[in-house]
Amino acid sequence: MKHFDQSFITLLVLLHVSLLLGLTQGFCPESSCRVSHHQSRQERQLQSSSDDFFGPNTERDNHMPSSYRDLDPLAPYPMDKLENGGKVTLVGSGPGDPELLTMSAYKLLQDPEAFFICDRLVSKEIVDMIQGEVKTARKIPGCAEMAQEEIYSWAHDALSRGKHVVRLKIGDPFVFGRGGEEVINFRRFGVEPKVIPGVSAAFSAPLLANIPVTHRGVANQVVMCTGYGREGSSPDLIQYHEEQTVVFLMSVGRLRELSERLIKLAGFPADTPVGIVEKAGCPDQRTVVGDMSNIADLAALHDIQPPSTIIFGKVVNVLLDSDQYEIIEGLVKSAAKPFAAKFAN
Amino acid sequence: MKHFDQSFITLLVLLHVSLLLGLTQGFCPESSCRVSHHQSRQERQLQSSSDDFFGPNTERDNHMPSSYRDLDPLAPYPMDKLENGGKVTLVGSGPGDPELLTMSAYKLLQDPEAFFICDRLVSKEIVDMIQGEVKTARKIPGCAEMAQEEIYSWAHDALSRGKHVVRLKIGDPFVFGRGGEEVINFRRFGVEPKVIPGVSAAFSAPLLANIPVTHRGVANQVVMCTGYGREGSSPDLIQYHEEQTVVFLMSVGRLRELSERLIKLAGFPADTPVGIVEKAGCPDQRTVVGDMSNIADLAALHDIQPPSTIIFGKVVNVLLDSDQYEIIEGLVKSAAKPFAAKFAN
Repeated sequence: MKHFDQSFITLLVLLHVSLLLGLTQGFCPESSCRVSHHQSRQERQLQSSSDDFFGPNTERDNHMPSSYRDLDPLAPYPMDKLENGGKVTLVGSGPGDPELLTMSAYKLLQDPEAFFICDRLVSKEIVDMIQGEVKTARKIPGCAEMAQEEIYSWAHDALSRGKHVVRLKIGDPFVFGRGGEEVINFRRFGVEPKVIPGVSAAFSAPLLANIPVTHRGVANQVVMCTGYGREGSSPDLIQYHEEQTVVFLMSVGRLRELSERLIKLAGFPADTPVGIVEKAGCPDQRTVVGDMSNIADLAALHDIQPPSTIIFGKVVNVLLDSDQYEIIEGLVKSAAKPFAAKFAN
Repeated sequence: MKHFDQSFITLLVLLHVSLLLGLTQGFCPESSCRVSHHQSRQERQLQSSSDDFFGPNTERDNHMPSSYRDLDPLAPYPMDKLENGGKVTLVGSGPGDPELLTMSAYKLLQDPEAFFICDRLVSKEIVDMIQGEVKTARKIPGCAEMAQEEIYSWAHDALSRGKHVVRLKIGDPFVFGRGGEEVINFRRFGVEPKVIPGVSAAFSAPLLANIPVTHRGVANQVVMCTGYGREGSSPDLIQYHEEQTVVFLMSVGRLRELSERLIKLAGFPADTPVGIVEKAGCPDQRTVVGDMSNIADLAALHDIQPPSTIIFGKVVNVLLDSDQYEIIEGLVKSAAKPFAAKFAN
């Protein structure tokens, strides 16, 4: 254990407190209906968990590791269950609606003895169902790595107390969720996590807006990608295939650049249909439809914000038939416009 | 109503009975653990539902439409709920394990008043949870269109009786599940179905074999496709991208041809890792790993059968680390081999 003099510790504490205040009050480009739902309980959790982590003069702080890599393994090799009963389950909580939790996830949430580490965007409705102790990860842009270390530190502590650590992630743990990295890091502690799939926004956000990602004769392939590569770069573009749907997650901030690059560099026709589903599964879910030439303008017009899922391809128009749906300036308004004439005998 | 003489009807009945026997006893290339689970209850259902549909001399048969296109719309335009209370929900039942049902699907299954139309491959365990009346679709290769008409006929009949029709599909309704087509056809009856997502095998089969479809620095894109295009053709190939995972569903029968074409025509390096997950989520799930040059031989060696999910890309080896997993001739044997040395301080 390292020793520092008192003034150095005080300085560190002050730095941590300022950082913490900046983070919890600061601008968050990923804020969503779910986050606003969280304010009351999750911000309290955040504050209290951050106090646990950063707070001054407690015994725990003094031996807080500078990195999860400093944490001792709890078993000589990865075991499904430690000798003290400790174990880890990574579980997907789906897009946010408790009705879309799997039975398996639902049962885990009911366990008052389990120790829960939630992603920041897990919905308030789901967090409120948790019976055990809850910590919420502070994954705010720019601080992802630090938050990840905090998660491992919490998990290690709970495991050493023989707890069942339930790592509750949004969507599916292995679809753009860093689930694989977490498995590897839990193995470093001597634990082989169990992983339980969840409903991914990649498929369910389009579905909830009545956009099938595949449709016979229209699309027989689906590509899932993000608009951000490593260190904010643009990832490789998908070359255009007529019978392919392309779904972009976490990319709405780059929509204009993305559409332009797909047209200029990847062969997408400018009239390729595009749909954007904002806040999928939330009571205020919205869908905007257009084509690659006008979608960025339509998104700006309707002030579309993250979290949004973008769908490029002909499937966008398969069920969002303008004979049935009222579409005003790209915004799908309702699903109950009569179209009797079509089916009269 | 048309009238036929008695001997013609007898001939038709004999033809139907032979066809039915041929189908229920015949070879089914998609047979799986789930199908064998079904034998007792689902085959009885199949027999009884086929009797309903094909059986002789009942009043219903006499006015059975020759196609669902002959069925009258039940409302002048698509409504969420008919005036008699009839409605339709398309719901995904996930890969087969009842633990992976969504809460929403679980609640629907508990409704004793609902009328259920299940896909043939919905697992026995899930079918056994159904409280209402159940019909099982007879989708056997070569008879998909006829089975689909039968589904619409059952649904129309139940809707005209004011029933809640629950169309229970495997996986997710909009991922290679013809869900979009069903929505369009239910609209012809005057009903706008509600669609509920499910856990898709496209993501969950790899996950259940400890293969993350995305992993930072390894794969930031995922492509989902099938090995069969329309009328049995080979669909467009995906050109190789180093940081892309390609998941093939329903393609294990074409594995050799597929690997060869991907190497020769789509730029895949012959040493691209490949994983095959057979019977994902079943008690006898198996995973075979290799590369594109040897995977067809390994699949033949271990007699890998449908349903299987094939994963091409570097993610296959991210967690299936041979230091931890015992891999014998490509078959992953266990997940508990010690690898303490790696993490000792």
